[in-house]
Amino acid sequence: MQLQCPLPKLQFDHINLGHGSGGILTQQLLQRGVFDVLANTYLNAHHDGALLPSIGEMAFSTDSYVVSPYFFPGGNIGHLAVNGTLNDLAMCGARPRFLSLSFILEEGLPVAHLEQILQTIGQCCLDAGVQVVTGDTKVVERGKGDGIYINTSGIGERLPQAHIHHNRIQSGDVIIVSGELAEHGMAIMSLREGLQLESDMKTDCANLAPLANRLVELFGESIHCLRDATRGGLASVLNEFAHDTSLGMAIHQPSIPVRETVASACELLGLDPLYVANEGKFVAIVDKAIANEVVAHMQAHTLGVHAAQIGQVVNDHPGQVVMTSGIGGRRVVNMLPGEQLPRIC
Amino acid sequence: MQLQCPLPKLQFDHINLGHGSGGILTQQLLQRGVFDVLANTYLNAHHDGALLPSIGEMAFSTDSYVVSPYFFPGGNIGHLAVNGTLNDLAMCGARPRFLSLSFILEEGLPVAHLEQILQTIGQCCLDAGVQVVTGDTKVVERGKGDGIYINTSGIGERLPQAHIHHNRIQSGDVIIVSGELAEHGMAIMSLREGLQLESDMKTDCANLAPLANRLVELFGESIHCLRDATRGGLASVLNEFAHDTSLGMAIHQPSIPVRETVASACELLGLDPLYVANEGKFVAIVDKAIANEVVAHMQAHTLGVHAAQIGQVVNDHPGQVVMTSGIGGRRVVNMLPGEQLPRIC
Repeated sequence: MQLQCPLPKLQFDHINLGHGSGGILTQQLLQRGVFDVLANTYLNAHHDGALLPSIGEMAFSTDSYVVSPYFFPGGNIGHLAVNGTLNDLAMCGARPRFLSLSFILEEGLPVAHLEQILQTIGQCCLDAGVQVVTGDTKVVERGKGDGIYINTSGIGERLPQAHIHHNRIQSGDVIIVSGELAEHGMAIMSLREGLQLESDMKTDCANLAPLANRLVELFGESIHCLRDATRGGLASVLNEFAHDTSLGMAIHQPSIPVRETVASACELLGLDPLYVANEGKFVAIVDKAIANEVVAHMQAHTLGVHAAQIGQVVNDHPGQVVMTSGIGGRRVVNMLPGEQLPRIC
Repeated sequence: MQLQCPLPKLQFDHINLGHGSGGILTQQLLQRGVFDVLANTYLNAHHDGALLPSIGEMAFSTDSYVVSPYFFPGGNIGHLAVNGTLNDLAMCGARPRFLSLSFILEEGLPVAHLEQILQTIGQCCLDAGVQVVTGDTKVVERGKGDGIYINTSGIGERLPQAHIHHNRIQSGDVIIVSGELAEHGMAIMSLREGLQLESDMKTDCANLAPLANRLVELFGESIHCLRDATRGGLASVLNEFAHDTSLGMAIHQPSIPVRETVASACELLGLDPLYVANEGKFVAIVDKAIANEVVAHMQAHTLGVHAAQIGQVVNDHPGQVVMTSGIGGRRVVNMLPGEQLPRIC
């Protein structure tokens, strides 16, 4: 990130290729948009990279965000870009500290859209107590992008109490979800499909670090694994766990929290909520001795009001996720074979 | 990055939207492509992020790469994605350690192209002694990308001898470039324009850390500032320094190393080599007492054979870059106003 001293106001209403040149237009864009909104000690150093203090053991994560459309009910791509990466760090048992921010802008993007997204990014960072410390901006020709793509990478500080790894999952552990599923994916899909339900549906995008960090601090080694249920939804997370551990995941359908309107919208579009993306929900695999306490603690937190125990880890059906219905039926919940909801995040 | 255990061979020759779903196709792609080529302890942990050891004071940098075309004389987007980010860390006075790797793939990208780029990334990392420890893959529809875009973010360990900042630049300092300019930009442009000269021209893309780190270790505080001359070329770097320091940059045209064929190609296309991108050259601003020694050291290194002193920092013309010609003419070298060479990196 090479930012410069004050420069005149932007001369353009839309992004053009010059904004990606590394020249005056790039600097005007950075100055007005990025520098003002995201200013902090590290970013202000105007270097090729940020110089950061030592923070002990770290977590490091990256994600590119290509959600379409980039404004959607309850948020925009900026919310995803900050919270999505913070959540990956939190799922490692780390407290998020620093973010990088890299844009791929399409020629013709309204500058006002970029500014709104930057405001969102600034606000999310402020709320989360993290700083954008380095960045990059590229511009591609019309028809070679889709408005705006964002990459964020994050550095977090590992909590000393954290011992989170899929190899710590064991038979008898309890499977907990932190809240109602499928809200992010259905907010996007209802917008794309023009559903009437749209007004009632919005993304659940949230920074999960306050809750996830707290659980790790309180329950330490008894929290065996955490994972946010993004692309591919709950079903994908549980299949990954089953695959990586060669244990079985047994879940109980009536226990899985899904809001009525979301469930109806899923049905209308022929989607299974177990596979629909979340951006503010996670799965915790915990020692059964603390499961009730974990759920109670989650439910007392705004991020986990609808938290629920949905099943347990078993020695049966190794490598598979099996769901029982309310009337006793059993079915295997497979990994999503291909594409269900493209560009959901 | 969530990688999985061995899975069948890829069923497709081209990337489709399912490869970005987070489901089975994503895992097959990661397994065959990423996991095999880039395997290391951190990446193998299959987590949302990588858990890394403490490394003391850090540098952190990010860049997205959108070069078009993504294969070009002497390299491909994979070379840029690794070396470009390593170079940003090296310019901060840091030894590169860890990289993240994030793809935005366009539906229809030949899988063979992705594999070739991954091989390049793996080789560059091996050569540089760095590890890709976390990553992400997204797929966008045909016409919403351009084959492949890559983001890398990097973490480096600050060398204890490094005191590099533009506020350390002072009048009397010597301006050094590490080698012949404009080679990367002209390799891309000659390809785009179908110049006959093409065969003679190739990217200078290289990992500059071995040379830049060594200079910092040898000369410590006497190395005042380092910056690689990428987008916008030498002229942009010097204008940034002039702007940030409110000092003048006085350079001498005949001292600036540019290869004959590159200079001719620039002339043919009406481009000024001072503004053309490099991917393996950097500018060093050093105390004049050590300038000769620095250049001698550079010239003895394969990365700096054609290193040269090209001018000095002055109190005259504050904020401006002024170049004298061989016959004594003087001209101001301005910041590039807008776009010269779009998507050069």
